[in-house]
Amino acid sequence: VYGEFDFIDKVLKPLATDTAALGLVDDAAVLTPPPGRDLVLTKDAMVASVHFLADDPPDLIARKLLRVNLSDLAAMGAEPIGYLLALARTRDLDDAWLHRFADGLAQDQAELGIGILGGDTVGTPGPLTLSITAIGSVPRGQALLRSGARPGDVVVVSGTLGDAALGLKSIRGEIAASAFLADRYRLPRPRLALGVALRGLATALIDVSDGLVADLRHVLEASGVEAEVEAARLPLSEAARDLEGALAAALSGGDDYELLFTIPAARADELAALSSRLDLPLTCIGTLREGTGLTVLDREGHPLAVDGGGWTHF
Amino acid sequence: VYGEFDFIDKVLKPLATDTAALGLVDDAAVLTPPPGRDLVLTKDAMVASVHFLADDPPDLIARKLLRVNLSDLAAMGAEPIGYLLALARTRDLDDAWLHRFADGLAQDQAELGIGILGGDTVGTPGPLTLSITAIGSVPRGQALLRSGARPGDVVVVSGTLGDAALGLKSIRGEIAASAFLADRYRLPRPRLALGVALRGLATALIDVSDGLVADLRHVLEASGVEAEVEAARLPLSEAARDLEGALAAALSGGDDYELLFTIPAARADELAALSSRLDLPLTCIGTLREGTGLTVLDREGHPLAVDGGGWTHF
Repeated sequence: VYGEFDFIDKVLKPLATDTAALGLVDDAAVLTPPPGRDLVLTKDAMVASVHFLADDPPDLIARKLLRVNLSDLAAMGAEPIGYLLALARTRDLDDAWLHRFADGLAQDQAELGIGILGGDTVGTPGPLTLSITAIGSVPRGQALLRSGARPGDVVVVSGTLGDAALGLKSIRGEIAASAFLADRYRLPRPRLALGVALRGLATALIDVSDGLVADLRHVLEASGVEAEVEAARLPLSEAARDLEGALAAALSGGDDYELLFTIPAARADELAALSSRLDLPLTCIGTLREGTGLTVLDREGHPLAVDGGGWTHF
Repeated sequence: VYGEFDFIDKVLKPLATDTAALGLVDDAAVLTPPPGRDLVLTKDAMVASVHFLADDPPDLIARKLLRVNLSDLAAMGAEPIGYLLALARTRDLDDAWLHRFADGLAQDQAELGIGILGGDTVGTPGPLTLSITAIGSVPRGQALLRSGARPGDVVVVSGTLGDAALGLKSIRGEIAASAFLADRYRLPRPRLALGVALRGLATALIDVSDGLVADLRHVLEASGVEAEVEAARLPLSEAARDLEGALAAALSGGDDYELLFTIPAARADELAALSSRLDLPLTCIGTLREGTGLTVLDREGHPLAVDGGGWTHF
């Protein structure tokens, strides 16, 4: 099995396509910031059997790790530059596993035009533990925050909701197997192009990682506004639509990594063209008003309440 | 015990003194790069009972983690800006432990004028696993690399060598207890001021984390030069000097986090004033010539060889 230096030489160095990485031979990366732009920095960690399944394909583990970080960049309206990786690896991971892990990174690097900038690899007696720090940039002063939502804005979400949570159930055999849903759990699609397009349009932006209700509440708290969301308008995929628990998954399931944002109601008519250009559903699910808190209405206009087991009528 | 959001609110937010952190309420940090400078990025991970002792004081664990990263910045000649933290925590860590961990970070933040910019906290069934990504800056194009050493340069090291490795032995009871040596293991001193002072003077720079021989070899390989080092000139602390194994620790013990650098021989006379200004020993330990490899000479001018058990005469 590769030691630290062989691992860097044989597995990671081929990923160091950016000159800022200095070929991974130095103590740190040296990045010349793109002129006129702010840098956006985020860091997410994942632990085997907590955030992914230990027997998941290694390339998909790598890509999920990278993509959850890129989703945070998308949630600021940023374009990705590169990333640093820390890998605490267990003794049972052989060189083939490590190469397949790197293959996953290489695939996403090529797709997204980014490169590894540095990192660290250590041994651990515990579960495989990974973290990535992703770096991106936005035009100076144009990062999209959670705090800009205003009364009168509409609440919009991209893609479909609940698929990842249902996908995990599908992988665990708790519901019928669905390749579509399992893939949505294993391979997030960071909505980078949408994030960029929302600069100058969205008033607040976040990615749906904890679940729609939790993440929308983050926006409401940061912005000091109240929201009313209609459950019937939540976008559900064809695979999810008829499953028991689809609504609960859409409301509270995490890991969808769609973008949730607010825009002035007067500009809602721009969404159709944007959706068409990006080939990505953009669905208005509610509106904002002065106040605090979140109300979710059912088809009859009655508020739903959350309890320990999911969403129920009052 | 704090959940993720309480941990961020109560433990980490007070550390978010830099406006770039956005109070840790958003998806990522937004950093306006200092004009005319390059950014320097590094990431190091540590695992309990691999890189530190699980019952080490939590504030010292935090400071060691931060400082090994800052040492990488020092090794590029960079000044620190801030850092992101990922913490995979075990169930046995109570809130008091977390606050003491944060106290350690707060202490170093105040000392160094930096702040936390973001990060992630997750649970783990395995050992406590930590990583930090540190961000610093250098004037554009002035980062000091490992690759600039030239024949005729002299090899210089800061501080004293071997103390950390002997300190670990002292903590483990393998040698007599020494508070000085134990402290040198637990609390690295990143040589940031020296790194800055070496811009425009050093031809190559690295920090001593793997051990003098290993790290000097990194410089020799990156620069394509050969070095001859005199063992008698290695700087040993008073606490280490008379201990058995002091020379081996100085040559091969890691974790000293001193700076190892090369400068043109013609400028070696500048070292005394620099040492005096920084109140830090700077010791010439050898010279570079054309060729490859490293020779370590004993007092009689005979080369030493390394075997499995340490350094021996040929």
